[in-house]
Amino acid sequence: MNNENICALSTATGGALGIIRISGPQSLEILSHIFSKDLTKAQPNTIHYGHLVEHDAVSQHQPQPTVEHDAVSQHQNIIDEVLVSVFRSPHSYTGEDSAEISCHGSRYILNKVLALLCQHGCRMANPGEFTMRAYLNGKLDLSQAEAVADLIASTNKATHDIAMSQLRGHFSSELGKLREQLLKLTSLIELELDFSDHEDLEFADRSELNELAKIINNYIKKLIQSFETGKAIKQGIPVAIVGKTNVGKSTLLNRLLHEDRAIVSDIHGTTRDTIEDTIDIQGITFRFIDTAGIRQTTDQVEQIGIERTYQAIQKARIVIWMVDQQPSQKEIQEFIEQVKDKSLIITQNKIDKEDGFKIDSSLLNTLQKYSFIKISAKHNLHIDQLEKAIYQAADIPTLTDTDVIVTNARHFDALQRAHASLQRVLDGLGTSNSSSSISHSPLPPDLLAEDLRLAIEHLSEITGGQITPNEVLGNIFKNFCVGK
Amino acid sequence: MNNENICALSTATGGALGIIRISGPQSLEILSHIFSKDLTKAQPNTIHYGHLVEHDAVSQHQPQPTVEHDAVSQHQNIIDEVLVSVFRSPHSYTGEDSAEISCHGSRYILNKVLALLCQHGCRMANPGEFTMRAYLNGKLDLSQAEAVADLIASTNKATHDIAMSQLRGHFSSELGKLREQLLKLTSLIELELDFSDHEDLEFADRSELNELAKIINNYIKKLIQSFETGKAIKQGIPVAIVGKTNVGKSTLLNRLLHEDRAIVSDIHGTTRDTIEDTIDIQGITFRFIDTAGIRQTTDQVEQIGIERTYQAIQKARIVIWMVDQQPSQKEIQEFIEQVKDKSLIITQNKIDKEDGFKIDSSLLNTLQKYSFIKISAKHNLHIDQLEKAIYQAADIPTLTDTDVIVTNARHFDALQRAHASLQRVLDGLGTSNSSSSISHSPLPPDLLAEDLRLAIEHLSEITGGQITPNEVLGNIFKNFCVGK
Repeated sequence: MNNENICALSTATGGALGIIRISGPQSLEILSHIFSKDLTKAQPNTIHYGHLVEHDAVSQHQPQPTVEHDAVSQHQNIIDEVLVSVFRSPHSYTGEDSAEISCHGSRYILNKVLALLCQHGCRMANPGEFTMRAYLNGKLDLSQAEAVADLIASTNKATHDIAMSQLRGHFSSELGKLREQLLKLTSLIELELDFSDHEDLEFADRSELNELAKIINNYIKKLIQSFETGKAIKQGIPVAIVGKTNVGKSTLLNRLLHEDRAIVSDIHGTTRDTIEDTIDIQGITFRFIDTAGIRQTTDQVEQIGIERTYQAIQKARIVIWMVDQQPSQKEIQEFIEQVKDKSLIITQNKIDKEDGFKIDSSLLNTLQKYSFIKISAKHNLHIDQLEKAIYQAADIPTLTDTDVIVTNARHFDALQRAHASLQRVLDGLGTSNSSSSISHSPLPPDLLAEDLRLAIEHLSEITGGQITPNEVLGNIFKNFCVGK
Repeated sequence: MNNENICALSTATGGALGIIRISGPQSLEILSHIFSKDLTKAQPNTIHYGHLVEHDAVSQHQPQPTVEHDAVSQHQNIIDEVLVSVFRSPHSYTGEDSAEISCHGSRYILNKVLALLCQHGCRMANPGEFTMRAYLNGKLDLSQAEAVADLIASTNKATHDIAMSQLRGHFSSELGKLREQLLKLTSLIELELDFSDHEDLEFADRSELNELAKIINNYIKKLIQSFETGKAIKQGIPVAIVGKTNVGKSTLLNRLLHEDRAIVSDIHGTTRDTIEDTIDIQGITFRFIDTAGIRQTTDQVEQIGIERTYQAIQKARIVIWMVDQQPSQKEIQEFIEQVKDKSLIITQNKIDKEDGFKIDSSLLNTLQKYSFIKISAKHNLHIDQLEKAIYQAADIPTLTDTDVIVTNARHFDALQRAHASLQRVLDGLGTSNSSSSISHSPLPPDLLAEDLRLAIEHLSEITGGQITPNEVLGNIFKNFCVGK
C-alpha cells in the first residue's frame, strides 16, 4: 500500500546521539547507497557498524572504477561513523522493511544524512507517519497508536500508566467486550426483525433486552465520566495559593517546588525544560496558577491580597487559602462565597510564631470538601501533610494497571455518540425502567437495530475497526512528533 | 580496570525516542534485572524487543512465585516497550560489554529507567565517560576522543570535516610521523652521546641534524599557525555590518539570514535552536556581531550611525560598510583608520534607485584586503556576489580531506611547547643557519637529547601516548556531553 520510503529524525537535536529512522519497501536499498556496506541482504534485528558516505559529484557522473568491497574510495566524503539497526517486514515497528541509524548528534551530520536519504529516494516523514503505517499495517489499532503519542508526552506516573495501559490494549479490549455485548443485543433484536411481518409479535423479552442495554450503557457512561479525571491527570490539576501579602505564599510555593525538584535532579544529566511551577504528588501533576503578585512579596501596595486573586480561584480546582491569624467570620464567609465548588485547603502558616487557632467548621460545612493544615513554610514543618491534603483534595480515584481512563477528546466524543444511540435504543424499548424520564412508545425492531448499529460504529471509530477516512487519520497523527 | 557500570541518557530530551546507554562488566546482567528477557547470553550486535519492568516492592521482599519465562507477572509494572541493542567486549564503543536501550522519549520513562538501572547497580556516567573508557581501553587515542566532542558540536561542513579527519586519525598519523623523525634525530644525537667521553668529537654531521630539525620544526610551526584558522572555523567568523541609519543594514542582514535558513528549513522536522544571526557560506560559519541598533531602523535619533559602531568593528574580522551614496574623501579616510587590520567589503546598496559611483581605490590601497560590491538588499540583487566576497574576505585556505587543522587549545599548547624545545635544539646545534637571530654556542649532545625527549613528550601528550594524569583527563572530558 505504501510504496513511498520515509525518513525522519526521531530524537531531539542537541544530544550525544541522534537517531534517524527510515521505513518503506526500498528503505534498505536506499540506505545501502550511502552506507559502506550492502544492507539489502542483512539479517533482521542485526546491528551494522560502518560509514555514511557522500559520493562526490565527479564520481557520480563518471564511470566508477572498481573499488574493493567495504573500502571508502577517494571520491567519497565520510559523513559519519554510525551503527545501523536493520528490521524486516513484518517484524518491525511500521511492519515494513526499516532501519534506524545511530549518528553522532551533530546538527550538520543529521541534516546531511536526511538530505542524502532524500536525494536517494526517501521523502521526509510527516508527524506520526511511522505510527500511522504501523496502524495501517495492522501492528496497532487506532487507540493504541494514539497511546504512543500520549506515552511520549507522559511526564509522571499517572499519565504514563494510562498511556501504557492503552498502548497495551486494555482500552481496546474493553471496547471489544462492549462490542460483543452490543452484537448480542443486536442479534436478539434482529430475531424480532425476522418476524417483522407479524407487526405485533415481540419475540425477544424486551425487559431482558432492556437489562442488557442498561448494563452496556452504564459502562459507557462510566467511561465518559472518567474523561474528567483523565483530563485533570493529563493537563495537571490547577491549584491556586491565595492569601494576604506577607502571609508566606511565595515561600510555600518555593518550598513545594523545591521539594519536588530535588528528587528529579538526583538524576544527573536529565533536563527539566518543561516543568514550570508544577509538582508531582504520588504521580499526579499539580499546576500552580500564576496568581497576581504571588511571587512579588516586595509589592507592598497590594495589601488587599485576596480581592486580587479571586480570578485565580475561578481557574483552580484546588484552592490553598493561607492565613497566619484567625480570619474574621466575615472574611471566611466572603471567601466561601468564592470557592464553593472547589476543594479548599485552609493553611495556617507561621505556626512557629503565631498562636494556634481553630476555624469554626460550622461556617465551612457548606463546602463540598475542605481541610485545615498548620504549617511553617519557612521551617519546613508539616509540608508533607499539606502535600497529602493537596493529593486528597484532587479526588483522583486510585487506579489499577487495568483501569481504563479516557484521556482523548476523540474517544470522549465517540463514546458520547455511542451513549446517545444506546439511549435511543433504551427509550425505544419503551419499558418503564428506562432511565429517561420522558416516556416513549416502543419502537419497531428495525429502528432499534439501526441505533444499535450506530452505537457499534461509534465505538469502532475509537479503535479504527471501521475504515477511517484520511481526514480523520490526518487529524489524529498531525499532533504526533516527527520521527514516531 | 573499570569495574563500575555506568548509564546515561545519550539523546536530548523532547524527541520521539530516547536512547539510554549502559556500559561495564555487569551491564547486561543489570539490564536483565529490569528487562523481560535474559540478556546475559545474548549474541553481540543483536537487537531484542521486550519490556522494561519495575518489580513491586511487595514482590521484591516476598519469595517470588515461579513465573513463566518472558511473561510479565502481576507484580511488575511495565515502564516501556523497548528495543535493546547488545554489544560485547571488546567490539563495542567503550570496549566493554554494553547496551543501548531505545525507549519512548518520555521524560518520565527516561528518568524512571535511569533510576531503575541505578537501583540495580549502575551509577550515572560523568560527561564523556563512555568515550574516556573507549580511550582507556585503547579504542581511540586522546586526540581522536577529543574529536568525538568536536564532531557532535559540529554545525557546518568545515567544523565537521576537521573533526571527522581528526577522529579518523589523520592528525594522530601526522604526529606519529613527526615522532618518528624526532626519534631518528635523537638516535643520531645519541650516537654522539655514546662517544661523549671524547668531548670534542661530533660524530653526526651537525648540519644534517640541523636540516632535519628545521624540517620538523617548520611542520610543527605550520600546525601551530593552523590554529588561527581552526579557531575561526570553530567559533564562526565575526562580521560587522556598519553604515548610516536607513542605508539598509537590517534589510541586508535579514536577507542574508533568510537566504541561508530557507535551505536549512527544507528539511522538515529539524530544529534550528542554536543558530542565532549566523550564516553558512561554503561550509564556513559567519557570525554577525550585534551592532548597536542594527535592527532598530525606527530609531531615528541615531543619525550618526558609524560613530556608534566603531566598537563593533573592533570585534569583527570582516567589516561590511554599507553606503547608498558616494562617501566623502574624509569619511573614507576616517573609516579606513578604524578597519585597517580587517577585511573590508564596501557595499553600495539601493543600486536600483541610486546612481552608481566608484570609490577612489587609491585611498583604499592602504588596506590589506578590500572589495567593492553593488547590491540591492530589498530586491535581492547581487546578494550571491556579496556572499562570495564575504567568503573570500575570510581568507580560509581550501581544505582537503587529509589536511590537518589544529582546533584544540590543548593541542595548540602542546605544539607550542614542542616547538620551543625543538627551537632550543636548533639553537643548541649552533650552526649559522639557525632561525634564531641570537647566536648560540653549540650545546653538548646530552642537553640536546634532553630537549628532543621533551619535544617528543609534548607531542605524545596530544594523542595520550604517555600516561595522562587523571586531572588532565578530567579536564578533557568534562566538556563532553553526558551520554557520549
